[in-house]
Amino acid sequence: MKRKNISTALAMLLAAGSLAYAQEQQQPQRPARQNPEVFTGVVINGDNSVTFRYKNPKAVKVEVSGEFMEGSAQLVEKDGIWTYTTAPLASEMYFYTLSVDGSPIVDMNYSMTKDIPRWMNYFIISGEKGDIYSVQDVPHGTVSSRWYESKMLQMRRRVNVYTPAGYENSKKKYPVFYLLHGNACDENSWLDLGRAAQILDNLIAQGKAEPMIVVMTNGNPAQQAAPAYFGDTYTNANTMPGIAAFPDTFSEVIAFVESNYRTISKKEGRAIAGFSMGGGHAFTISKEMPNTFDYVGLFSAAGSNISRDEEKAKLLTMKKNGYKLYYIGCGTDDFLYRNVLAYNKQLDDIGFKYYYRETSGGHTWGPWRIFLSEMVPMLFK
Amino acid sequence: MKRKNISTALAMLLAAGSLAYAQEQQQPQRPARQNPEVFTGVVINGDNSVTFRYKNPKAVKVEVSGEFMEGSAQLVEKDGIWTYTTAPLASEMYFYTLSVDGSPIVDMNYSMTKDIPRWMNYFIISGEKGDIYSVQDVPHGTVSSRWYESKMLQMRRRVNVYTPAGYENSKKKYPVFYLLHGNACDENSWLDLGRAAQILDNLIAQGKAEPMIVVMTNGNPAQQAAPAYFGDTYTNANTMPGIAAFPDTFSEVIAFVESNYRTISKKEGRAIAGFSMGGGHAFTISKEMPNTFDYVGLFSAAGSNISRDEEKAKLLTMKKNGYKLYYIGCGTDDFLYRNVLAYNKQLDDIGFKYYYRETSGGHTWGPWRIFLSEMVPMLFK
Repeated sequence: MKRKNISTALAMLLAAGSLAYAQEQQQPQRPARQNPEVFTGVVINGDNSVTFRYKNPKAVKVEVSGEFMEGSAQLVEKDGIWTYTTAPLASEMYFYTLSVDGSPIVDMNYSMTKDIPRWMNYFIISGEKGDIYSVQDVPHGTVSSRWYESKMLQMRRRVNVYTPAGYENSKKKYPVFYLLHGNACDENSWLDLGRAAQILDNLIAQGKAEPMIVVMTNGNPAQQAAPAYFGDTYTNANTMPGIAAFPDTFSEVIAFVESNYRTISKKEGRAIAGFSMGGGHAFTISKEMPNTFDYVGLFSAAGSNISRDEEKAKLLTMKKNGYKLYYIGCGTDDFLYRNVLAYNKQLDDIGFKYYYRETSGGHTWGPWRIFLSEMVPMLFK
Repeated sequence: MKRKNISTALAMLLAAGSLAYAQEQQQPQRPARQNPEVFTGVVINGDNSVTFRYKNPKAVKVEVSGEFMEGSAQLVEKDGIWTYTTAPLASEMYFYTLSVDGSPIVDMNYSMTKDIPRWMNYFIISGEKGDIYSVQDVPHGTVSSRWYESKMLQMRRRVNVYTPAGYENSKKKYPVFYLLHGNACDENSWLDLGRAAQILDNLIAQGKAEPMIVVMTNGNPAQQAAPAYFGDTYTNANTMPGIAAFPDTFSEVIAFVESNYRTISKKEGRAIAGFSMGGGHAFTISKEMPNTFDYVGLFSAAGSNISRDEEKAKLLTMKKNGYKLYYIGCGTDDFLYRNVLAYNKQLDDIGFKYYYRETSGGHTWGPWRIFLSEMVPMLFK
């Protein structure tokens, strides 16, 4: 990709996070009929401050709230266009919500993703993090939505699989990173909100990460697939009476992946991590299969606890078997922060080595994207 | 999948289109904090009438519009919840837009998809069409988002590929159906709005269609991928100065597919179809490569015209080479209806055989989903 043409340049611009800026540049090309609400959306200014715009002449009060501010701010109306400009923002992916006369809305004309269980607008500020979370003009992996048969859950289940650039045209075997999601999320969450494909594409292209397969499962055993795949917005419980717990069925996932992909089918070629409920799943799966993963990641993990002797014994078995990385990450404002520290103490007491990473932030995607971006380069080296 | 468990039953319900009904059933399980606007969304009633609900105590006027009605209807407010119930609706996939005090909104709590260039809510009414457009509990194909290198356009380009259930675990070679999109759409449109994966899954499972690979390209040569993939909502022009027209680059797509998949790499194993601009692309590509496709589909095609002798000559060459199906479809309310009939007349004049399908409806996805559902069973027999 030596020479850049218009569209490559455009893609780079977009990839650099200047989405609305690029839109501005494109105005002359956009037939008005295609976008009457062209004055809505987000403009990322040169100083990384962000201007929110919303066209609604009849509104009485328009507010914006998001991860980038405390509480909310009021937009000011002029000629029916409401605007508000933030202070310069640090490089990140940010969700925001507009509220019109007290009712939250999403801007149908701007980029959107789905969180539990609602749709939200988002934008990315370029820079250290934003560039890793954005689509860059580098070789891209393939993202496949496949279905495996779960005998234990007696259903077809959807799984998203990232294979790194070059996978299809090589004979090489690749290590596998199993990436699990939290309560009320699904197999799409790490892709949509976690930016997993972009993070892997970019870190591999920079030579910071080994090419690897990433498997994103649905950790809700009562679901065949993400509710959105059925046109539903409801995310049902992650457990259901009479249905096996997801971690108990994980051997089926590994068997599916290792019989369908060219994998390094041994401990040194397997990693598993998750956030919240998925962190609890990674905790459970790794201790119940104590000789299966060389790399384990617990991000804001729920339910990691070895107060009972038989649980301690399982970790000690894992310690005896050996492992290369046990990554624990948590935000200092996370409601699980104390539980995480308590678990670290339990590990200290039995001399179980782990890598601990603390960051600002709560039980949100900000820290989880950071933990993923930092753990991936530590894998399979 | 003999035995059905709770979640399979749920999936079937959802698949049958009774999304909101299923949501109702699930209420007790849904933590309120996850969905404060639980009273928004759509309820599909037993008689297939649809009740729209929107919670907004401060709104003065709430209206709904959609493909299922002429103009719009006003919702009636009670205790801050606005509702409106339609007459019983025919089985279909329907988009709808709520308008609050004159400003269109999308319901962040209900199912959404992206059309040009905005996000819209949708629902599916079960029955003859709806069941084919919905996720059913049948074997599912794999949908992969891959990237190919276009030397002609000098960029990496995203392409969505559907491989039928069983592809991965067979040695068999499969025919390929190239599915092209219209102006301002992209490689995701046939999946998101055209329901291509569900239509193929269901028709193959019913034994009505041959298992086939479906390739969904991006027909805008100035784009590397769908704008939404970059977090943008802007869909740029399908042509750009100094960049080759997409049909001129199609040999690259075929070469990529046939070198990366187990394909029947001859005329009898290739089909191509598209709607609007994509219909024009299918028209152009099939006549410029007159011995390449045994099956061609023009849905509400833009630009199909052989008034010039050299164009006639190309169709006559195609006629001489032979082909099995030249499918032409159009809605009687389509603004291109007359052009389509004029093209049919041109074909009659040179004795070029075609299959013509007319349906009610305009230049919209309704007719295009019908044409896809009817053409797929005619392929590769």
